[in-house]
Amino acid sequence: MARSSLYQQVAAELRKAIYSGEFRPGDQIPTETELMDGHQVSRNTVRLALGELENEGLILRMRRRGTFVRERRPLLMRPQDELLPLGGDLPRFDAFVHAVTSEGRVAEQNIEVQIVQPPHDVATRLELVEDDALTVVRRRLRYVDGQPYNTNDSYYPLKLVADSEIVRPGNITRGANRVLEELGHPQVRFVDDISARMPTPDESTRLQLEPGTPVVVYVRVGYDPDEAPVRVAVSVLPADKHLIRYELERH
Amino acid sequence: MARSSLYQQVAAELRKAIYSGEFRPGDQIPTETELMDGHQVSRNTVRLALGELENEGLILRMRRRGTFVRERRPLLMRPQDELLPLGGDLPRFDAFVHAVTSEGRVAEQNIEVQIVQPPHDVATRLELVEDDALTVVRRRLRYVDGQPYNTNDSYYPLKLVADSEIVRPGNITRGANRVLEELGHPQVRFVDDISARMPTPDESTRLQLEPGTPVVVYVRVGYDPDEAPVRVAVSVLPADKHLIRYELERH
Repeated sequence: MARSSLYQQVAAELRKAIYSGEFRPGDQIPTETELMDGHQVSRNTVRLALGELENEGLILRMRRRGTFVRERRPLLMRPQDELLPLGGDLPRFDAFVHAVTSEGRVAEQNIEVQIVQPPHDVATRLELVEDDALTVVRRRLRYVDGQPYNTNDSYYPLKLVADSEIVRPGNITRGANRVLEELGHPQVRFVDDISARMPTPDESTRLQLEPGTPVVVYVRVGYDPDEAPVRVAVSVLPADKHLIRYELERH
Repeated sequence: MARSSLYQQVAAELRKAIYSGEFRPGDQIPTETELMDGHQVSRNTVRLALGELENEGLILRMRRRGTFVRERRPLLMRPQDELLPLGGDLPRFDAFVHAVTSEGRVAEQNIEVQIVQPPHDVATRLELVEDDALTVVRRRLRYVDGQPYNTNDSYYPLKLVADSEIVRPGNITRGANRVLEELGHPQVRFVDDISARMPTPDESTRLQLEPGTPVVVYVRVGYDPDEAPVRVAVSVLPADKHLIRYELERH
């Protein structure tokens, strides 16, 4: 086992205090001078240690105000909610809006609608065999309490939805899923793929990400009763702000 | 919109080529000299662009051999498989071993068993009310084709499993879940929480992570028929090597 350097030892102790809950989210951690005295190390060593924790996304260093354990108040996403049975007359709320407002927070979203050749991965998932097959994509940038929070791009085969509200800009109050149902393509099965990666610079800018924040990429494919894929929804979820939860029961 | 610098433009073009599938995983991308000529930029600009893509985990720069689109052959994890009904006499394979071997790859794991005060988060999930309550943790470091692949730490309340095989080191052929059943605590409900973050230095070393690789943290809590939590399994999954898939049906 290689011996760790001095700054790594300081970082390790602070990290342990954060992961163990000794320092809780939002707590101010000791100042540079306090850490120098407490660990008998130089200011430079303290700064290297704090830099490491910042890169891991554990702390936020705020000019003049000090260093804080990063607030983690992740939004709880429940992908199974889209399967809940709905009362006939109830409006079909957007699952994101529902998750946010149920926490007493304010949800907003911008929607852009485009007709595009989909990325390779989306075309494969939609089983589009022709190379030039087009899709309608409804791109959402979502806000919670006024802050950009995540993006959700839902792709539909153009030939399926060309004559529907799905190609028109703006929100669909009863939800695009309902429109698919009316077109004879209710989604009766979902396949959800979850992975993570570092954001692209474009995503960092759009979602105002802190350095060292990965994104969770959550892709849902919806199938109709004939097992045809009718929708691919790609969500990009900044990892510090989201938690995905599934509940399973043994039948 | 701020104008992006020259190296960011080069990075953006390469990134687009990777995400669109023009460059596929394992492909060698053009050399520095070719990129200089192709984009009419300096070597320094090319290197900055490649450095950015490396940090995003999209490419691997290999000394003397060139630059390659990172291989992504993620292991498909199906958390629902742990719920599959099992024939009475069939051995209960470990879900990880099953996922790996079904892809024709070789799975191995090292298991260490310890009695510990659990981290705060685990204690909360196990609803351990006494501050000094102990847990047994079975820590697994898992290998695929000889490479460290992920870690899985399963915590059990000590008072529940103290007299069982779960506290003894070594593999349990029929699976720890089966032992819990025999102790009268079958897991009939699971709550799965999925999030992502940057790895700790310790995780980077243990899992031999490339720079810019986040980890997916997958936490499963298993409940017995009395709704008591009997197991918390924390998996740390390098994001470039894992894909989590759930399948849902409307009933």
